[in-house]
Amino acid sequence: MATIRDIARRAGVSVSTASLALNEDRRVRQETRRRVVDAADALDYHPMRAARTLSSGRTWSIHLLDPAIGANMSSGFFTRFLRGLHDAARDGGYTLTLTVPHDEREARAVLKRLVAERWSDGVVLMNPSDHDGVLEDVVAAGFPHVLLGRSPVPGVSSVDNDNVLVAADATRHLVDRGRRSLLLINGPASRTFAQDRARGFLEACGADARVTGRVVNVSGAPDAAAPALAAHLDAGHALDGLVAVSDPLAIVSLRALHERGLRVPEDVAIIGMNNDDLTQYTNPRLASVELNAYDLGRDAIESLLARIDAGGRTGGEGRRMVTHELVIRESSG
Amino acid sequence: MATIRDIARRAGVSVSTASLALNEDRRVRQETRRRVVDAADALDYHPMRAARTLSSGRTWSIHLLDPAIGANMSSGFFTRFLRGLHDAARDGGYTLTLTVPHDEREARAVLKRLVAERWSDGVVLMNPSDHDGVLEDVVAAGFPHVLLGRSPVPGVSSVDNDNVLVAADATRHLVDRGRRSLLLINGPASRTFAQDRARGFLEACGADARVTGRVVNVSGAPDAAAPALAAHLDAGHALDGLVAVSDPLAIVSLRALHERGLRVPEDVAIIGMNNDDLTQYTNPRLASVELNAYDLGRDAIESLLARIDAGGRTGGEGRRMVTHELVIRESSG
Repeated sequence: MATIRDIARRAGVSVSTASLALNEDRRVRQETRRRVVDAADALDYHPMRAARTLSSGRTWSIHLLDPAIGANMSSGFFTRFLRGLHDAARDGGYTLTLTVPHDEREARAVLKRLVAERWSDGVVLMNPSDHDGVLEDVVAAGFPHVLLGRSPVPGVSSVDNDNVLVAADATRHLVDRGRRSLLLINGPASRTFAQDRARGFLEACGADARVTGRVVNVSGAPDAAAPALAAHLDAGHALDGLVAVSDPLAIVSLRALHERGLRVPEDVAIIGMNNDDLTQYTNPRLASVELNAYDLGRDAIESLLARIDAGGRTGGEGRRMVTHELVIRESSG
Repeated sequence: MATIRDIARRAGVSVSTASLALNEDRRVRQETRRRVVDAADALDYHPMRAARTLSSGRTWSIHLLDPAIGANMSSGFFTRFLRGLHDAARDGGYTLTLTVPHDEREARAVLKRLVAERWSDGVVLMNPSDHDGVLEDVVAAGFPHVLLGRSPVPGVSSVDNDNVLVAADATRHLVDRGRRSLLLINGPASRTFAQDRARGFLEACGADARVTGRVVNVSGAPDAAAPALAAHLDAGHALDGLVAVSDPLAIVSLRALHERGLRVPEDVAIIGMNNDDLTQYTNPRLASVELNAYDLGRDAIESLLARIDAGGRTGGEGRRMVTHELVIRESSG
C-alpha cells in the first residue's frame, strides 16, 4: 500500500508539503496541491481516517444523539428525518454516527465523552424537554450542534416546524368542517413540541365561541391513546373532533372509537400529524399534517456544517423553520 | 486539559509506559496499568478517539451499510434491527455509523473507502440480492463483516431467520383454517429472503393436494401490492388466503380488498410478516410473523465483535439463526 513518502517522491515535493497539500492547507500553492493529489490518485493512496483527523483536526463525522428511536410506533418520521440527515451529511463529505441513550443521565455522559474525545465535529440533538441538561451542557462546551425542536434554554441553534401553527391549522380544519367539541391527544407536557401544539390547539378553539377544546397528555407507546380517549368519553365529555399529535396516536384512536361503536368521520372527525405512509391505507384514510421530516434533517445538517466551517465563530442561537401542509383524507369528514 | 505527560508524572512512569497502559498493552504489568488508569481518572484525561485509534489500531466504530432505509413503509423492522445493533455495539464499547448508498455501485465505492481508510472495525450489510458485488468485495478484502440475510456468495458470515420455515408456517396456518386458494405477495425475485419465502410458501401449498398457491413478486413501495392483487383477481384466479412478506404489503392489500367489496377474513384471510406495532390497530387486526428484528441486530453485532476480537482469524462463513413466532389476530380467520 502506498505511503505519504511514495506520494511525495512521485510529486517531487517534501513529505511535509505532501501532507499539507492532502489536508488542503492554504499554504500550499494550487498547482503543487494538484500535483500531490494526482500522485495520490495514481498510487491509490488512502490515509487512515484517524490519521487525517489528527492532521486536519476534522473527524468528518456528525453524531446524532436520539433518546427516542423506537419509541414511535411507525417510526416514519424518524426514518425520514434520519435519511435527510444522512443525505446532507454525505453531500458535505461526512458520515453519520448514532447514539441512543436510555435517559438524560446517559445522554449527558455520552455527550461529555463525545466532546472531550472528539468523536465527531458536531452533534444533532432531538426531543428537548423543559429542563434539558444535555442542551445546557452542549452550550457550555461551545460544541457545534443543532437541535430538532424548540429549545427551552438560550443559546441553542435549532430547526423546527412552527408547531403552534401546525396544531392551529389542524384544529381550524376540523372547526371549518363544523366540529365543536374537540380533544387534542398530546405528547408529554414536558416536551416543547407538545407545549407548542397545545397552545396552537387552544388558540384555534378559543377563536370560536361555539367551540370547546380539551387537551390530554400521554407518554410512552401510542397505546396510551386508548385509555386516555376512554377516560374522556367516560367522563361524559362531548366529542366530535379529535386532533392527535402523531399518526400512530390517531390510528390507535381510530381503532378505540370503532370498538366503542363510534363512526369516523360521521361521529368523530380525526386528523393526525407526520403524514406517515400508512395514513393512506387505514380505513378510513387518515387526514394528517405533513411536517417534511426529510427537509428538517437536511436543514439541520446544513445549519450544523455552516457552524463547523465557521469554526464555531458564528455563535448565538439560530432557528430555522420548515413549512408544513395539511393533507386532507376521509377521516376528517 | 490533562495530557499523557501529566498522567505519566502522576503515575510515576514513563510517557511510553503510560501510553501502552492506556491502550491495555499486555507488556505493562496489571498493577502499573491500574496506577496509570487511576491517574487518568483523577486528571479527567480524555485522549482524542483518533489518537487512540492510531495507537491501538481500533476505531471503536461499526459501520452499517444499508441500501434500503426508508424503502419500507412503516420501517418498524428497520428501527428495531437498528436498535438491536446499537445496543449490542454500545455494550461492546462501540459506536454505530450509518451509510445509505443509492445503488450497488455507490455501496461498493463506500465499502472500498471504508476498508482502505479504516472508517470502522467491521461492517454490517443488509438486503443481499442474487449477485451481490458488495459481498464479493467484502470477502475479497477479508474485512470483518456480518450480513443480515442469506448470502448468495460463499465465505460470508450472516444472521437470519429461517425464511423457508417462516413462510411455510404462515401458509400452513391459513391452510389449517380451511383456505385453499392462496397467494403470496412476495418481494423482488432477486432478493434471497424472497426466494426463501417463495420456496416455503410453495412447499406448504404442495403438501396438500386441495391447495393451490401462486406467487407474485413486487418491488418498491408497498403500494405495489394493490395493482398486483387486482391483476390476480382480474385474471379470474380464486383467492381465499393471502400471505404478504411484510405488514405494509398486507395493510395495503387489506385496503385494496375492502375497496373491491371483499371482506377480511370472511372472504380472504390475511397474514403479514414483521409484526410491526401497527398490526394490532388495523381493522381487522392483522395476523403476522414476529421475526425478532431486535435480536437479529444484537446477534449480528455479537457475531461481528467476535470476529474483530479474533483479528479476522476465525475466517470462513458462519450463519446464525433467530427464531420466529406466529402472532395470530383477527385477519387470518
